[in-house]
Amino acid sequence: MAEISETEIVVRGYHLDLYQHVNNARYLEFLEEARWSYLESKQTIDWLTKNAIGFVIVNINVNFRRAAVLNDRLLIQTQTSKIGNKSVVVHQDIFLKGTDTKVLDADITFVVMNLREQKILELTDEIKALFL
Amino acid sequence: MAEISETEIVVRGYHLDLYQHVNNARYLEFLEEARWSYLESKQTIDWLTKNAIGFVIVNINVNFRRAAVLNDRLLIQTQTSKIGNKSVVVHQDIFLKGTDTKVLDADITFVVMNLREQKILELTDEIKALFL
Amino acid sequence: MAEISETEIVVRGYHLDLYQHVNNARYLEFLEEARWSYLESKQTIDWLTKNAIGFVIVNINVNFRRAAVLNDRLLIQTQTSKIGNKSVVVHQDIFLKGTDTKVLDADITFVVMNLREQKILELTDEIKALFL
Amino acid sequence: MAEISETEIVVRGYHLDLYQHVNNARYLEFLEEARWSYLESKQTIDWLTKNAIGFVIVNINVNFRRAAVLNDRLLIQTQTSKIGNKSVVVHQDIFLKGTDTKVLDADITFVVMNLREQKILELTDEIKALFL
Repeated sequence: MAEISETEIVVRGYHLDLYQHVNNARYLEFLEEARWSYLESKQTIDWLTKNAIGFVIVNINVNFRRAAVLNDRLLIQTQTSKIGNKSVVVHQDIFLKGTDTKVLDADITFVVMNLREQKILELTDEIKALFL
Repeated sequence: MAEISETEIVVRGYHLDLYQHVNNARYLEFLEEARWSYLESKQTIDWLTKNAIGFVIVNINVNFRRAAVLNDRLLIQTQTSKIGNKSVVVHQDIFLKGTDTKVLDADITFVVMNLREQKILELTDEIKALFL
Repeated sequence: MAEISETEIVVRGYHLDLYQHVNNARYLEFLEEARWSYLESKQTIDWLTKNAIGFVIVNINVNFRRAAVLNDRLLIQTQTSKIGNKSVVVHQDIFLKGTDTKVLDADITFVVMNLREQKILELTDEIKALFL
Repeated sequence: MAEISETEIVVRGYHLDLYQHVNNARYLEFLEEARWSYLESKQTIDWLTKNAIGFVIVNINVNFRRAAVLNDRLLIQTQTSKIGNKSVVVHQDIFLKGTDTKVLDADITFVVMNLREQKILELTDEIKALFL
């Protein structure tokens, strides 16, 4: 079972849109921030750079459960949920911090690319280990 | 069958990220721009404002097919694909303009909210007609 | 002399643009994040909301000194530098954390608005105290 | 005297922030969009790419005159205002389209960089001609 990484973000005025809710595109940045933080905590970013390997998103599926508003403190939980031979699914939940109230949940499906040759890679055990 | 609305966007330097591809959060803004343009062409925005009605996204499901890069001319096609009693699905495709090359396809599921009472509405025939 | 507030941001892949540098619009979000953090630490946000008062930017002047790149740890220093009778200037510097290397410096000039009446206010002593 | 390039942008729900005005960082994207459009109309983008030359912003100075709100049609005028031996100033105005009402004016100061060597270039006559 993969570990759960946690990231906090406070909702600011510039995150809101017409309805005074966090805009849906902004949530994708919150989720991406949490994934960078997850990779960083595992020293994965250095390994990726050294090996010219990148993660390329092939599907994003997000359920919006409750609007987040100004000053909300969000807790983002990030965890690998499935590792196949060609793709990886990362599951992310956003909660109002300190509560069970879920703001959204998302599954992000990646493939792994050799950036020099722009070629999708089979997931070797070494790469799979990055997600555990 | 609902009509298809078309919007064009040219990929600029500020749309790109680390991999020199359009960032996934930015694509959600492209899709939102196309939906505003679609609503505007049908005079729906005025009606929504007058009636204090808003569209609230409950699910976004995006398949990323091919990375878009600097100077690409994108054609976004937007079309209502399903109207239920409580929700509407809008389907969107992004193509490289003038080709069959698909950059992404997405289904965006909405509910309709009375903004004053923050209450989800049943879709009346008047509201359903906005999506045809 | 006003206190100096400090905020840290790590540069991620989605902050970069065509040149693999942080995009100039993104820096304005970094600066805004730091100002929200500054106000929050002084309990000013609650006071503003309660009194329906907002800060409206009238001028932004930014000098870009050195490009920030992936994984850079940025330290943003925020400080009120001038309080007049109608406007306030906040000075902000971004450094590479732990060094003297300056990424940018900026002066942000605000007026204070009564949000209900959309009217610019003279800066009373009570409002001036928010910036010290 | 350099020609004036014109770009139009309609204000959408995702451009707004807490105050229901276009956010200041978003205006910088509007200004950047207008500059890309300006360069594209002059075939400058291809020349820059072929010669591995980039424009690097060293100063942005923006006066915000009037808030733009949902559905506003903005006209952005872009014009080179000063060409020195090491830097170029581009002046940009945003108007409510079809009126004299100015939303903002900005001066953007650039230097020109050899991207391969990451070196600032003297402005040759060939480069200066790009801005006329």
